[in-house]
Amino acid sequence: MRTVVKFGGSSVADLTKMRMVAEKILQRKRQGESLVVVVSAMGKTTNGLLSLAKEAVKNPSKREMDMILATGEQVSIALLSMMLQEAGEKAVALTGYQAGILTEGLHTKNKIKDIDVRTIERYLAEEAIVVVAGFQGSNKEGEITTLGRGGSDTTAVALAAKLSCPCEIYTDVEGIYGIDPRLYEKARLLPFVTYEEMKEMAFLGAKVMEPRSVDIAKNYGVPIYVGATEGKEPGTLIGGGNQHVEERSITGLSIMDNVMMVTINHLYDVTENIARIFNALAKEEINVDMISQSPMPDHSVSLSFTASQDDKEQVLALLERLLEEVEEAELQVETDIIKVSVVGSGMRTQSGVAAKIFSLFAEGGVGFRQVSTSEISISYTMEKKHQEKAVRLIAETFEL
Amino acid sequence: MRTVVKFGGSSVADLTKMRMVAEKILQRKRQGESLVVVVSAMGKTTNGLLSLAKEAVKNPSKREMDMILATGEQVSIALLSMMLQEAGEKAVALTGYQAGILTEGLHTKNKIKDIDVRTIERYLAEEAIVVVAGFQGSNKEGEITTLGRGGSDTTAVALAAKLSCPCEIYTDVEGIYGIDPRLYEKARLLPFVTYEEMKEMAFLGAKVMEPRSVDIAKNYGVPIYVGATEGKEPGTLIGGGNQHVEERSITGLSIMDNVMMVTINHLYDVTENIARIFNALAKEEINVDMISQSPMPDHSVSLSFTASQDDKEQVLALLERLLEEVEEAELQVETDIIKVSVVGSGMRTQSGVAAKIFSLFAEGGVGFRQVSTSEISISYTMEKKHQEKAVRLIAETFEL
Repeated sequence: MRTVVKFGGSSVADLTKMRMVAEKILQRKRQGESLVVVVSAMGKTTNGLLSLAKEAVKNPSKREMDMILATGEQVSIALLSMMLQEAGEKAVALTGYQAGILTEGLHTKNKIKDIDVRTIERYLAEEAIVVVAGFQGSNKEGEITTLGRGGSDTTAVALAAKLSCPCEIYTDVEGIYGIDPRLYEKARLLPFVTYEEMKEMAFLGAKVMEPRSVDIAKNYGVPIYVGATEGKEPGTLIGGGNQHVEERSITGLSIMDNVMMVTINHLYDVTENIARIFNALAKEEINVDMISQSPMPDHSVSLSFTASQDDKEQVLALLERLLEEVEEAELQVETDIIKVSVVGSGMRTQSGVAAKIFSLFAEGGVGFRQVSTSEISISYTMEKKHQEKAVRLIAETFEL
Repeated sequence: MRTVVKFGGSSVADLTKMRMVAEKILQRKRQGESLVVVVSAMGKTTNGLLSLAKEAVKNPSKREMDMILATGEQVSIALLSMMLQEAGEKAVALTGYQAGILTEGLHTKNKIKDIDVRTIERYLAEEAIVVVAGFQGSNKEGEITTLGRGGSDTTAVALAAKLSCPCEIYTDVEGIYGIDPRLYEKARLLPFVTYEEMKEMAFLGAKVMEPRSVDIAKNYGVPIYVGATEGKEPGTLIGGGNQHVEERSITGLSIMDNVMMVTINHLYDVTENIARIFNALAKEEINVDMISQSPMPDHSVSLSFTASQDDKEQVLALLERLLEEVEEAELQVETDIIKVSVVGSGMRTQSGVAAKIFSLFAEGGVGFRQVSTSEISISYTMEKKHQEKAVRLIAETFEL
């Protein structure tokens, strides 16, 4: 049986932890498994290298940044291979380039274009454990590239896709939870989530897997197992179809904070002004999330949208300039807004989830500002002070 | 004008020192020079990586060792390039592999087989400063390799050979001295040494340049300049022919310590026994340096040879086993022996250097044990207690 197993930076944070990982791999190898192991840089190495570059110069060039960052995994794959070899197994460390990982795009945020798995296949045929550097590859010019946030997961899933085998991701959490256990202590570990649910949850703020690795898994039908490196609990399987044992209307709940809500009251000539505003925001690459509008008693409109609080200065400067000529318009910004999202592929078939939540919020006195829905999710923006109550009401009602 | 300039680990030990190196390079680039810069890993990085691997496992595999060690230069070339770019110059960092450095041999002690300089030539044509990782390359299987001791010098000299240009080596000493200034404070900095002299001095214990980089320089006629990174003094030129301004009979003096002298007295059946002894030593890969034999009053022979003190246990065990059947033979080992060597291409044309030193030693009461000569050197073994006097006598007489 062939498997791609991936260990994140916290699983190989020091030599002691790395030895435990080596032990796990050795046990499985000795049971006859064929293993490709993807490893991240040890612990905080990547952050350390980033700091070093920023200490050296104000604006590190991205090509050379990639060259520095790639050394982190180069060290961890070599050390892990040495440990496997010392235990008497054949093992080989391959950098992104050597593993045939061809990327394209901008330095520091490359995407995997293709993987030439011939080298890996050759070593697997020789019964070697193949240890591949996560997060990195090289482009067609032979330059060293990195894959950005969540890059090692992407490496693992893409390798599993090309090697036609399942992928296991080991990390410092037990698996995927319906709610972040830091938000709701009785949070339930999910035995199964669909690709769609996982992707929606990732987009809506859950930090376990990057949406793009879930996309690859879905496209190639790669089953992904997520579990704790040292855990004995069964973790979570991410897969296709709908293998939920019991039909659940809601699988998970995510919170996105650091949100601000911008409101423009007394807006006349709505169509024209809305176009001007959103074109200007798009031009400055400001991501606008939820948009709502409501009529005002003076027959004008109140327009609201949410965006990241990080963009506050830029958004305010832009809108003040735009609204100079719009006499009556009145600009308001509220920070400390959160976005609460519930996700579940069961929503497709079960009606009334939104209605149920509306009445929960009404009874509980949870005021919300905006609502938006997708096929498998519903999101609400609200003041942060309502977060605890909203989470508890939803978690208890839907047994998350 | 095109030049390969090399900066060792001590020249880029921290970001402050690296900034000074960047400044030096920028000044020359702005005067219109075309520069290929070879850099070692920062300060003690290589030793740190070695220790990490040895902490991980008892016997690190050499292939993976090379992979770890190569990260040291990968970081330093990227940082230096960032600094050059921030100052507004075009610069590009190339790992050994990217620079086209093809190697062959055993991991951790590869030799440069060839360099495909097309990538470097392309960047030079674009007026970029090309920053190349010293000490590393890759073999024809695409594996990362390192060049062993003095590897960055070898990279620099080999690049200069292939790019048909001179090579400048910047280090933490002012140049090549006739004697190590720690041994003789009035030591003279040599403005010029020939390739042959440099190589002989390197072999005989001077630690400035590895013999194999001198070999490459000689074969391709690459002039090498050696000087201090922060120095204002003119350093030393290593070149062909004999450009010494005044004909000197001796150019330099080297000391090799950590030597032991093994003596076997009362050895009969000399021819047979000597063959047995040296065959056995060769089989265990023990390097024997100087050999001498002298007749004893009982018509037997006294055989002496020198070797590294590091091999003492191994040599003793071997000889005791061999001499079990040789009844009269008597084994003695003296440690704290040194080898004093004088080097000079002028010896070829000037006779009497050996005679002059013999009489110096006789007058000064410096007892020596063995003498050996090559075309441009004479070596003496003696007890360490004679070192200071021997050095002073030779240095003063030959004005080193």
